[in-house]
Amino acid sequence: MADAIPGPAARRRGRRRAGQDTREPLLAAAREEFAERGFEGATVRRIAERAGVDAAMVNHWFGGKEQLFIAALDFPVDISTILDQVRPGDPGQLGGRIVRAFLTVWDTTGGAPLGTLIRSVASHESAARMMRDFVGTALADRIVRPVAPDRPELRAALCGSQIIGLGMIRYVLRLEPVASAAHHDVVTAVAPTLQRYLTGPLD
Amino acid sequence: MADAIPGPAARRRGRRRAGQDTREPLLAAAREEFAERGFEGATVRRIAERAGVDAAMVNHWFGGKEQLFIAALDFPVDISTILDQVRPGDPGQLGGRIVRAFLTVWDTTGGAPLGTLIRSVASHESAARMMRDFVGTALADRIVRPVAPDRPELRAALCGSQIIGLGMIRYVLRLEPVASAAHHDVVTAVAPTLQRYLTGPLD
Repeated sequence: MADAIPGPAARRRGRRRAGQDTREPLLAAAREEFAERGFEGATVRRIAERAGVDAAMVNHWFGGKEQLFIAALDFPVDISTILDQVRPGDPGQLGGRIVRAFLTVWDTTGGAPLGTLIRSVASHESAARMMRDFVGTALADRIVRPVAPDRPELRAALCGSQIIGLGMIRYVLRLEPVASAAHHDVVTAVAPTLQRYLTGPLD
Repeated sequence: MADAIPGPAARRRGRRRAGQDTREPLLAAAREEFAERGFEGATVRRIAERAGVDAAMVNHWFGGKEQLFIAALDFPVDISTILDQVRPGDPGQLGGRIVRAFLTVWDTTGGAPLGTLIRSVASHESAARMMRDFVGTALADRIVRPVAPDRPELRAALCGSQIIGLGMIRYVLRLEPVASAAHHDVVTAVAPTLQRYLTGPLD
C-alpha cells in the first residue's frame, strides 16, 4: 500500500518491478520493441509489458516515448558528450575533434546502434523528424553557430551529411579500407571536409 | 525451332522459360544469388540457371550483370548511367559532375527509393554486402582509378561516404536548408569535398 508505483495489476501478477531496477529493463525492452516495430509501431504499453514494468515508469524515467527512443539508441548521451568534448579548443581544429569524437563513441558500440538509428530514420518520419530537429538544433546552435555565425544551419547540415555518411560506410556498410582504418587516418582524410563546412568558404 | 532464345540445352531440359515471363524470375534469382555470393561472386550463368532462363536473357532485359544487380536491388538510381555520364571531361571537375549527377537522378524520384535502399542496407547484411561490393568495384575501378591510381579504394569509399550522407540529409532526413537548396548551391558546397577525395592529398 505504501508503494505507489507498481499498480494493483502489477502486484496481482507479481512480476512487475519498481524503483531503480526498472530503467535498464525498459531500455532493453524498448530496443527490442523499436527494432521490431519501428518508432511509430512501438507502444509504451507494450514496452512496459516486455520489461515487466509499470507503464508509468516510462514517463518517470524518460518523459515519454520519444525520449525513451532516443535513450534506447544511446543517442543523446553520446551526442551531448560529443558536443561537450569537441567545443573547447581551437576553432580551426574543430573538424578533426568532431570526427575523432564520433569515431571514439561509435567504435565502443561497434556501430550497431548506428544501424538501428539509420534504419529507423529511413523507415519512420517521426524518427527522421527527431534526428532532423536534433541535428538542426544541437549541432547548429551548440557547435556551429559559436564558430561560424554565417549560415550555421547550412554548415551543420553539411557536417551532418559527412558524419552520417562516414558512419554508414564504416559501420553499416563496413566498406574497406575505411572500415578498418585507424582513427588517425580517418581523421586526416575527413577532418578537412568538416573544417571547410564549419569555417571555410561555401561558395 | 523458330524460338531462338532458349538454347538446345534448355529445350532438352524442358524447363527454361522465354519471353516476357523471364524478367521477374531473373530478378528473383539475382536477389538470391547476390545475397548469397555478393556482387563479385555472383555469376550471370548461375543466376540464369537458378531462374531456369537462358543466360542470354540477362543481356536482353538488363544489359549485363551490373544492371541486373541494380534492378535486383531496386537501386534508386541507375549507377551505371551516372558513372557513364560523369566520366568524360576534366578530372579536376569530376567531383562537381558526380554531385550534380546524383542530385539530378535522385530529384526525379523524390528520393523515396533512396530511403528504401538505405533501409535495406542497414537491415540486411546481404544488401550491405551487395552495396559494399558495388561501391568498392564500380566506383573504385570505373571512376576513381582512372583519375587517381593512388589508393583508389580509399578515395572511392570516402566519395561514397559523402554521397550517401548527402542523400540521407537531403532526401531521407530532409534537413533544411540542404533539402530545398538549388543544385548549384549544393554542388558548390559539396563538390570540393569529392574533388579532394578523388584527386587531392589525403594525408
